[in-house]
Amino acid sequence: MVRIIGIDPGLLHTGWAVIEKNGNNRKYVASGVVLPPKMESLPNRLAFIFREVSKLCETFQPDECSIEITFVNKNPQTTLVLGHARAAAIVAVADKNIPIFEYEPNKIKKALTSAGHADKEQVYKMVRILLPAAQPKTPDESDAIAIALAHANMSKFGL
Amino acid sequence: MVRIIGIDPGLLHTGWAVIEKNGNNRKYVASGVVLPPKMESLPNRLAFIFREVSKLCETFQPDECSIEITFVNKNPQTTLVLGHARAAAIVAVADKNIPIFEYEPNKIKKALTSAGHADKEQVYKMVRILLPAAQPKTPDESDAIAIALAHANMSKFGL
Repeated sequence: MVRIIGIDPGLLHTGWAVIEKNGNNRKYVASGVVLPPKMESLPNRLAFIFREVSKLCETFQPDECSIEITFVNKNPQTTLVLGHARAAAIVAVADKNIPIFEYEPNKIKKALTSAGHADKEQVYKMVRILLPAAQPKTPDESDAIAIALAHANMSKFGL
Repeated sequence: MVRIIGIDPGLLHTGWAVIEKNGNNRKYVASGVVLPPKMESLPNRLAFIFREVSKLCETFQPDECSIEITFVNKNPQTTLVLGHARAAAIVAVADKNIPIFEYEPNKIKKALTSAGHADKEQVYKMVRILLPAAQPKTPDESDAIAIALAHANMSKFGL
């Protein structure tokens, strides 16, 4: 059995999900969203993400972590801020010596929906089909579950 | 007396410097460069920066931290990686509840050399004039000293 934490980082909302992979079985464990206080400074919001993700690792003791690779998009300044949030989450996980696997967004979508350009609604539908116990309330939570599921399906050495 | 840590973040080299401000006096305490192992994964290198900066905060107990604001430059992908390294350092400091002050690069240069577009050589020369005890061996170390000095000169409430 492998326990996986999937993370969908963001400065406003960082989605997270914990699932278990046991051979071909997938089990939903927990999911949610980290919401850094909007009124705080950037450093304090990054520290908030770091602390919350650290706590999640302590609570759920994942064996592996799955996270999207960030690409520079139309708005490089927004991407830069996203990179900061992503690094805060990565540091929390890597500081606990949990291996991190990084995937391109279209590979995650393709692993679940067989379409690299699936929208959030299609991802949500596949999450609900693959893990009926998961009932994500926001797109960030749904995406984090998808990121964890994609890693479970893509990792080569199924246990 | 205020003890300041200046940080010049980077994935290859993260410069750091600790100085003390006492009224109009500036005292050099220590400086150096954090060198994350090049062969490691991005997450492990970020965790390395985080741990080293954490240790520096424990060793030197700074009251305040000064760091450059990163802007998107000609190479947005490089900026994104720099943003990750910057966030790893910021999280280490903010997690210890040390206030962080962010400055635009040209303001730092202007605070020291009275020219917003001074090059690294000019910055180095001013660092050597203002703090003769500091003998930075690399541009990253010199820049970190400059970042700490700039904050000492710019903060409004001189102690």
